Amino acid sequence: MYVVPESAIADLISPQDSFEAVESVFAAMARKDAYNFPVIREAIGHADALYGFKSGFDRAGLVLGLKAGGYWPGNADKGLTNHQSSVFLFDPDTGRPTAMVGGNLLTALRTAAASAVSIRYLAPKGAKVLGMIGAGHQSAFQMRAAAKQRDFEKVIGWNFHPEMLSRLEETAAELGLPYESVDLDRMGAEADVIVSITSSFDPILKDAQVKGGTHLACMGTDTKGKQEVEAALLARARVFTDEIAQSITIGEAQHAVADGSLAESDITEIGAVIAGMDPGRRSDDEITLFDGTGVGLQDLAVAAKAVELARERGIGQEIEV
Amino acid sequence: MYVVPESAIADLISPQDSFEAVESVFAAMARKDAYNFPVIREAIGHADALYGFKSGFDRAGLVLGLKAGGYWPGNADKGLTNHQSSVFLFDPDTGRPTAMVGGNLLTALRTAAASAVSIRYLAPKGAKVLGMIGAGHQSAFQMRAAAKQRDFEKVIGWNFHPEMLSRLEETAAELGLPYESVDLDRMGAEADVIVSITSSFDPILKDAQVKGGTHLACMGTDTKGKQEVEAALLARARVFTDEIAQSITIGEAQHAVADGSLAESDITEIGAVIAGMDPGRRSDDEITLFDGTGVGLQDLAVAAKAVELARERGIGQEIEV
Repeated sequence: MYVVPESAIADLISPQDSFEAVESVFAAMARKDAYNFPVIREAIGHADALYGFKSGFDRAGLVLGLKAGGYWPGNADKGLTNHQSSVFLFDPDTGRPTAMVGGNLLTALRTAAASAVSIRYLAPKGAKVLGMIGAGHQSAFQMRAAAKQRDFEKVIGWNFHPEMLSRLEETAAELGLPYESVDLDRMGAEADVIVSITSSFDPILKDAQVKGGTHLACMGTDTKGKQEVEAALLARARVFTDEIAQSITIGEAQHAVADGSLAESDITEIGAVIAGMDPGRRSDDEITLFDGTGVGLQDLAVAAKAVELARERGIGQEIEV
Repeated sequence: MYVVPESAIADLISPQDSFEAVESVFAAMARKDAYNFPVIREAIGHADALYGFKSGFDRAGLVLGLKAGGYWPGNADKGLTNHQSSVFLFDPDTGRPTAMVGGNLLTALRTAAASAVSIRYLAPKGAKVLGMIGAGHQSAFQMRAAAKQRDFEKVIGWNFHPEMLSRLEETAAELGLPYESVDLDRMGAEADVIVSITSSFDPILKDAQVKGGTHLACMGTDTKGKQEVEAALLARARVFTDEIAQSITIGEAQHAVADGSLAESDITEIGAVIAGMDPGRRSDDEITLFDGTGVGLQDLAVAAKAVELARERGIGQEIEV
């Protein structure tokens, strides 16, 4: 088994590698060549932790495995990341374990890659203003990945805690883009692409605030009860997602589906657009919304790429299992 | 993370260690200190493989993790075991991976330990004849573990393929016990304890063949459709199991529950007997039946013990993750 430690990931796999891996596996999902297994997610009744597994099999890429881990809210006090995860890969021909890869940074990369893929396939071609809602750890990854997909001229940002907006300003500077903090009215009126990456349980952006011709990537909602935008916005938008089963139960679409304003059949998997089975955006003035819930196959795809690169470069170690 | 390879397990953990680990976690389950998470089991559509995870958390023993792996029917032709599994343990205080342990031999040991625990707590005290139904790979583990629980004077055996019975004869000889191959009428009439470990999809042992005062450990049924004994035997017996949820869906009890002759409330978890919450066997002439379905917590318990012993003896290796 080949082991790639968490500390090696940052130098191994680029946002572009992650983009290609996620784009490819989303298309495999649409072609029914890849599927996710049911998600296990348990409040274990110890250390306030949530623990579980996301897993799946990509028959086209021959990638089989799982991401195990979860959320330990007390970790920060111990100098550890609250989100802890590891990816384990198995040989689909024999069931033997083939690799273990640190999954913390990979999770941020694969999440950013998913919204970047949605921007590539769904955002207006002439998008100039990138809006960011949320300024936590993952927002920098999101902005870096999003910025590559269009010729953005400006980044605007909003966060529930304004004192954290410096992260967005610094990341925009790193990308050579002017930055401005705005209120949500300006966010919805001026941004051509909006990425939301929060852990909100109440809608932040309202339907009336969003002009037409906008693409939204809602990346924060991955649990029952979470919500980043008003449900009416999903009813008005064309809605895409990584996996419909998750979108309607734990994703941003859960609320619009629950209130009857959005049907499961109104939602399209982004892989269908990548694979050429759905046209994606149909006009410059419509609103497209990508509900990024996060699927196990994304984790496996970036982990498999990291292992491939690690083996090429002799990073990590082979161990007897 | 500490890695204990498959090749190290045989010299590390004894049947007695496995017995104690499984006995302890069954009792923790009865006290609601330990629980299994939902099982993932997928026919992946490649290499005819079944792949999945059994997982859980023992709050008392602070053991958290999963067993990943499955069944690859083409492995034998490649010189590999068809059943392939690995156990991964995590620190319940932080979510960090703490150990990886080869799970193939551990699976045989924990399964044998479960039936041995049932014999200890449920078999007639004066049991003299041990009956074995099934002569595959796991039957030797079963016999060795069972033989320690009573002063058996003889082993009798039956197998669908009689040419494999030599395994039972050899294992009995290793244990210093006389052995005789018998038909199923004699099996049911003469054995005081019967362990069945087959992959049968039709009942082998019939209700009418079994005398009173017998304990049966049905260890082979772990999937919808499998069956080792006639359903009427469960209706007549007092039925125990490792986990009721599995017993009634994928265990031996599935058939008697489906035909209405056994109610879920008629089944007792063996942990309740171990923990002193249920008296177990009530008279010498009743039939007790243990439906051993195999739960993730058994795997985690023996794996945690193997890691403890490996660390003590300096076997295995610490790797950076």
